[in-house]
Amino acid sequence: MSFNTFGHMFRVTTFGESHGPAIGCVVDGCPPRIPLTEADIQPYLDKRRPGQSRFTTQRQEPDAVKILSGVFVDEASGRQVTTGTPIALVIENVGQRSKDYSDIQDKYRPGHADYTYDIKYGLRDYRGGGRQSARETAMRVGAGAIARKIVPGLGVRGALIQMGPHRVERARWDWAEVERNPFFCPDARLAAMLEDYLDGVRKRGSSTGAVIEIVADGVPPGLGAPIYGKLDGDLAAALMSINAVKGVEIGAGFGAAELSGEENADEMRMGNDGKPVFLSNNAGGILGGISTGQPIVARFAVKPTSSILIPRRTVDRHGKDTEISTKGRHDPCVGIRAVPIGEAMVACVIADHYLRQRGQVGEPPAWPS
Amino acid sequence: MSFNTFGHMFRVTTFGESHGPAIGCVVDGCPPRIPLTEADIQPYLDKRRPGQSRFTTQRQEPDAVKILSGVFVDEASGRQVTTGTPIALVIENVGQRSKDYSDIQDKYRPGHADYTYDIKYGLRDYRGGGRQSARETAMRVGAGAIARKIVPGLGVRGALIQMGPHRVERARWDWAEVERNPFFCPDARLAAMLEDYLDGVRKRGSSTGAVIEIVADGVPPGLGAPIYGKLDGDLAAALMSINAVKGVEIGAGFGAAELSGEENADEMRMGNDGKPVFLSNNAGGILGGISTGQPIVARFAVKPTSSILIPRRTVDRHGKDTEISTKGRHDPCVGIRAVPIGEAMVACVIADHYLRQRGQVGEPPAWPS
Amino acid sequence: MSFNTFGHMFRVTTFGESHGPAIGCVVDGCPPRIPLTEADIQPYLDKRRPGQSRFTTQRQEPDAVKILSGVFVDEASGRQVTTGTPIALVIENVGQRSKDYSDIQDKYRPGHADYTYDIKYGLRDYRGGGRQSARETAMRVGAGAIARKIVPGLGVRGALIQMGPHRVERARWDWAEVERNPFFCPDARLAAMLEDYLDGVRKRGSSTGAVIEIVADGVPPGLGAPIYGKLDGDLAAALMSINAVKGVEIGAGFGAAELSGEENADEMRMGNDGKPVFLSNNAGGILGGISTGQPIVARFAVKPTSSILIPRRTVDRHGKDTEISTKGRHDPCVGIRAVPIGEAMVACVIADHYLRQRGQVGEPPAWPS
Amino acid sequence: MSFNTFGHMFRVTTFGESHGPAIGCVVDGCPPRIPLTEADIQPYLDKRRPGQSRFTTQRQEPDAVKILSGVFVDEASGRQVTTGTPIALVIENVGQRSKDYSDIQDKYRPGHADYTYDIKYGLRDYRGGGRQSARETAMRVGAGAIARKIVPGLGVRGALIQMGPHRVERARWDWAEVERNPFFCPDARLAAMLEDYLDGVRKRGSSTGAVIEIVADGVPPGLGAPIYGKLDGDLAAALMSINAVKGVEIGAGFGAAELSGEENADEMRMGNDGKPVFLSNNAGGILGGISTGQPIVARFAVKPTSSILIPRRTVDRHGKDTEISTKGRHDPCVGIRAVPIGEAMVACVIADHYLRQRGQVGEPPAWPS
Repeated sequence: MSFNTFGHMFRVTTFGESHGPAIGCVVDGCPPRIPLTEADIQPYLDKRRPGQSRFTTQRQEPDAVKILSGVFVDEASGRQVTTGTPIALVIENVGQRSKDYSDIQDKYRPGHADYTYDIKYGLRDYRGGGRQSARETAMRVGAGAIARKIVPGLGVRGALIQMGPHRVERARWDWAEVERNPFFCPDARLAAMLEDYLDGVRKRGSSTGAVIEIVADGVPPGLGAPIYGKLDGDLAAALMSINAVKGVEIGAGFGAAELSGEENADEMRMGNDGKPVFLSNNAGGILGGISTGQPIVARFAVKPTSSILIPRRTVDRHGKDTEISTKGRHDPCVGIRAVPIGEAMVACVIADHYLRQRGQVGEPPAWPS
Repeated sequence: MSFNTFGHMFRVTTFGESHGPAIGCVVDGCPPRIPLTEADIQPYLDKRRPGQSRFTTQRQEPDAVKILSGVFVDEASGRQVTTGTPIALVIENVGQRSKDYSDIQDKYRPGHADYTYDIKYGLRDYRGGGRQSARETAMRVGAGAIARKIVPGLGVRGALIQMGPHRVERARWDWAEVERNPFFCPDARLAAMLEDYLDGVRKRGSSTGAVIEIVADGVPPGLGAPIYGKLDGDLAAALMSINAVKGVEIGAGFGAAELSGEENADEMRMGNDGKPVFLSNNAGGILGGISTGQPIVARFAVKPTSSILIPRRTVDRHGKDTEISTKGRHDPCVGIRAVPIGEAMVACVIADHYLRQRGQVGEPPAWPS
Repeated sequence: MSFNTFGHMFRVTTFGESHGPAIGCVVDGCPPRIPLTEADIQPYLDKRRPGQSRFTTQRQEPDAVKILSGVFVDEASGRQVTTGTPIALVIENVGQRSKDYSDIQDKYRPGHADYTYDIKYGLRDYRGGGRQSARETAMRVGAGAIARKIVPGLGVRGALIQMGPHRVERARWDWAEVERNPFFCPDARLAAMLEDYLDGVRKRGSSTGAVIEIVADGVPPGLGAPIYGKLDGDLAAALMSINAVKGVEIGAGFGAAELSGEENADEMRMGNDGKPVFLSNNAGGILGGISTGQPIVARFAVKPTSSILIPRRTVDRHGKDTEISTKGRHDPCVGIRAVPIGEAMVACVIADHYLRQRGQVGEPPAWPS
Repeated sequence: MSFNTFGHMFRVTTFGESHGPAIGCVVDGCPPRIPLTEADIQPYLDKRRPGQSRFTTQRQEPDAVKILSGVFVDEASGRQVTTGTPIALVIENVGQRSKDYSDIQDKYRPGHADYTYDIKYGLRDYRGGGRQSARETAMRVGAGAIARKIVPGLGVRGALIQMGPHRVERARWDWAEVERNPFFCPDARLAAMLEDYLDGVRKRGSSTGAVIEIVADGVPPGLGAPIYGKLDGDLAAALMSINAVKGVEIGAGFGAAELSGEENADEMRMGNDGKPVFLSNNAGGILGGISTGQPIVARFAVKPTSSILIPRRTVDRHGKDTEISTKGRHDPCVGIRAVPIGEAMVACVIADHYLRQRGQVGEPPAWPS
């Protein structure tokens, strides 16, 4: 990962600011002959799109994606497919309301990147957060939609498993429930509770953090490029690069610190299909940086939005003490919309490693020996 | 991070297996004219070296590092300095006892990378864990010793803050204590307790996990390359790439999920020196992927060693069910030796970003305006 | 250089096909606070733009560039400047006449990439050459315009020095002449002769090759990253990546093979300003991959356009022998428009190495010792 | 290519100075299960090794290569094979005679990198040329020997085709002759003539340039990563990075500038095996940056050695005018030993693109449609 590009074989470069003319990305290294139209991408963008419930920012962005390059009609099938050349996606920015943001032009929101962008670059585009805005993440979702099509059989799903102090009960987990509530929460009872909880947070002018879990099924064993391109290392970087993320864990994660060796070890038995079966998945599908064939399980923590109505002490560009209360349209819990973003980043990392593995090793042996 | 190299300007490539003739690394992109001899590196290696207490593996490796290239005597000062060309470090392997490892030749240790290396590559060097061995981390420590010399005023320190269920009390934190016990533990009372705890673990033929905290002081503001080369993104990848690490967090980390926006926001006031002062550090020194000038605080979770005496069910290379009990010399808590390794990785990432920032921006403005 | 991105610190990624909706690029790693508007870029694009004389393709493209991101108004100066975030440039495609190209849909033009794109990817966008089209080079020119602003004092100029068998006379070289004829030729007498020559080529339905020379003045000494990021190595890759280029040389180039050591050695004397003066420049400003401070001199050979009216034997996608005669709008000498493209690539490489040198070494010592 | 690493999937990092303890390289990304021992590498090193005739430097280096990592015995076959982890090669330096080089400690050899290393880094290891020494190229040859084993059916051969003003006659080309004379010259009559010519050069204390041609057979079509990872772009960078190289060309090269479009076009006919046949190879096996399936033909020009006995005017580190006459052991024509080096670089680039193609596209379709 370097500057605004990530990936080695499947490479994603994004550009754009919240209130500039457009945001976009270039997806390079995609295999050719994969069917792809805007309709394959738009549903994922719609999941991330703001303004769909009272629990996300009310900014109205249709987020209509346009493919500028890298696709062509395959004569044999009559379908539009990828050509192997760079796929550029662009979304025009149309919902900007610049006057909402005039209060942050000079003042630094505590907990926000206002100050660090200024101290690094000497200036920043403050309109709507500029490059720091979560708006950039729409392009990750766009790239992720392409990545999902590369690995046969891959399924990547995400869920919000904690908001503030409220956590999902594993026994109540129902993936179907994720589609039914505005929180991407797999626990119907928790989802019901969160409505009240988040209304309270919002009305108080506050915000709250969250934890998201991403599960990838159908990941073939053998993906990962030890030592410094480990699958979990790349996942950690990809998830940590999402705005507001402060922690990433794989499988048992921080909980592994409390386990004994015998508890943590995922025992193995031979399955009926001649492949080994793991009796547990503390590893989260990754051992030694390489996928085991089990589901990849990653979690990440999202801090509460720093743009809040409750006044906070801060300083301004001119070196004066002041305070700030951020008005305008903000998510009381940015963790909610982080679910499709996290899914996309995991899909991109897996697609990249799928191509890397195919490049270095080709088709792996069905079984060692 | 790609394959066996990490870093963009300050680049580290490692090689070598546990029981091959040697392990080594190439550090590329180091600035010239930095005083450097083996004596600058050896003390850090000695901290990581096994066999120094009964709580780490009894393998005896002098780990004597040799610089093969990239240094020369500066005539003006008479000191050996870096030349700007690649610095190769090599450590010969001398403490191998290959027969200890014959039991893992065919069987896969649950929780270990034995299986994934085999399924990926079709074979593996099983002697002492081969490339998967923690022995590789000695070279990270070597590179880290060089990285520390690049950023003026940088100090990177680490501590074990949890082992199994036992956690440090923040009020008892004393950095001086870290040097006084075999656990790198900053809490003298906890350290005393851990002696008994870990003896019990070891005698039981078991192992235990741990959590390590790394603090970097003297990091200038402005380091970090948004969006996909964020300082925290690179730290996450670097720490997650250490053997047995299952989670990484920055600042408040997973705890941020439970905070409200007003609690999480690190408020700012102008200090007497004309620079802003943060009134807390939930950000762990990083906002928007860019350093704030506060200490960088990163934590990572280390799972328990998977090489344990307690028998576990597994399969072998030939697809047969079996069980395994790993004899030989193993750390009951690999988290202990992860302390100097984590320090090294953090130092390398910061040095890399220091050079990247100097390249892109040059000397940053003292203050926006 | 990897896939559709080049550069290490100053990174350029391009996308787009000749007849898609748009072409574009993302310039990443540009320093902040550099004044930049479309007006800084457009003049260079206008130099490359087709249809300006009867000697280039008559496709009419306004090539109006639009900056989509990475700039903002600096309040202090009131000027639009770079922000340090990715700069996206886009040019809409408006002059496509797709029916002109239907003849190449199935047949492979000998000497063209039609066949290799098909055999690599299994399909290609054949409209106007798709991704292989020289249209992509507009984005190199756009990126080059930004690169020129990064290195203080840098001047990069190019000239056509040979077309077919006709070569420039060095004694007649006049940089001012380059602006006065449609060939970017610095020798007025040769330029006059080329009008007739190229008219003959065009009327015959043929095409011709050319040699271009690029000279960069004001390049500070010390740029270049040995061994594999040598300044001349990166220049060679950058120039060879231009469509139709078959050779690259630096300084004396292939002529150096005929020189003796004493002829080739550029002798040195101390100048009045305390800096060394070179008495010749066979090195073309680069020794050991590092700039000497002398002008960088690079030349490249451009093959004749393979889209010609004269019929040639070929095969088609279905494996049948056939012949092809390419109608439509084509440059009889693509070497002409390669002049601003070559300048741009040289500027990009130098800017990249300027930032890399600043990153690794910082401000170099005025003089060794 | 960045700093001391080249390649994307097949990555080579070299280190070491002429008179340090050792030189070495790390080859990363090599596929697993490829038979490899030192005996596969040594013959190529022996070809490059100095001191084998009176026409190369008399420095005596056994250049005995040692594999430090990345190989293991495959039980099934009993052979030592690659494991997919980094392969480190090391050659100890044993033939140094440091006193020979004391004259260049302060003075800059005109045409040599002495000055540029000093001005870039502020100091240099001047012993035997340090990092600038052609000694580094031994590691390229080592890496090339591994690369040759990756692409099934690949053959890479090189020949010296010009020395000073003397050129090979194409009609007399005999590959078998290359092994029979000390010049790697495929034209027996030219080889005989060069003995006298080069003796004259050497006795005069002078040196001479050369041109080398590399031909790669068995390269599958479809290799190359347009636009900025074109196969010819990467070849150009790889060959230009060899010490003393000042020009690179592919196929017709600079001669293409004089061709008409109809002359240059390599016409195609269907062959008996259902694959197209090219009737000429002006393209040198590459169109649009992608291999055609024809032999890859690359040439490069090597300047005369700058270390000569004939005195030249120069300056020293202290800014004084002086002159220099380089004694010691030097090649009168470094172009000779560039033959195996050029072969190695071409093999490495092709291997890299073979893996990249397999990664992005997998097995290409036998024929478009």
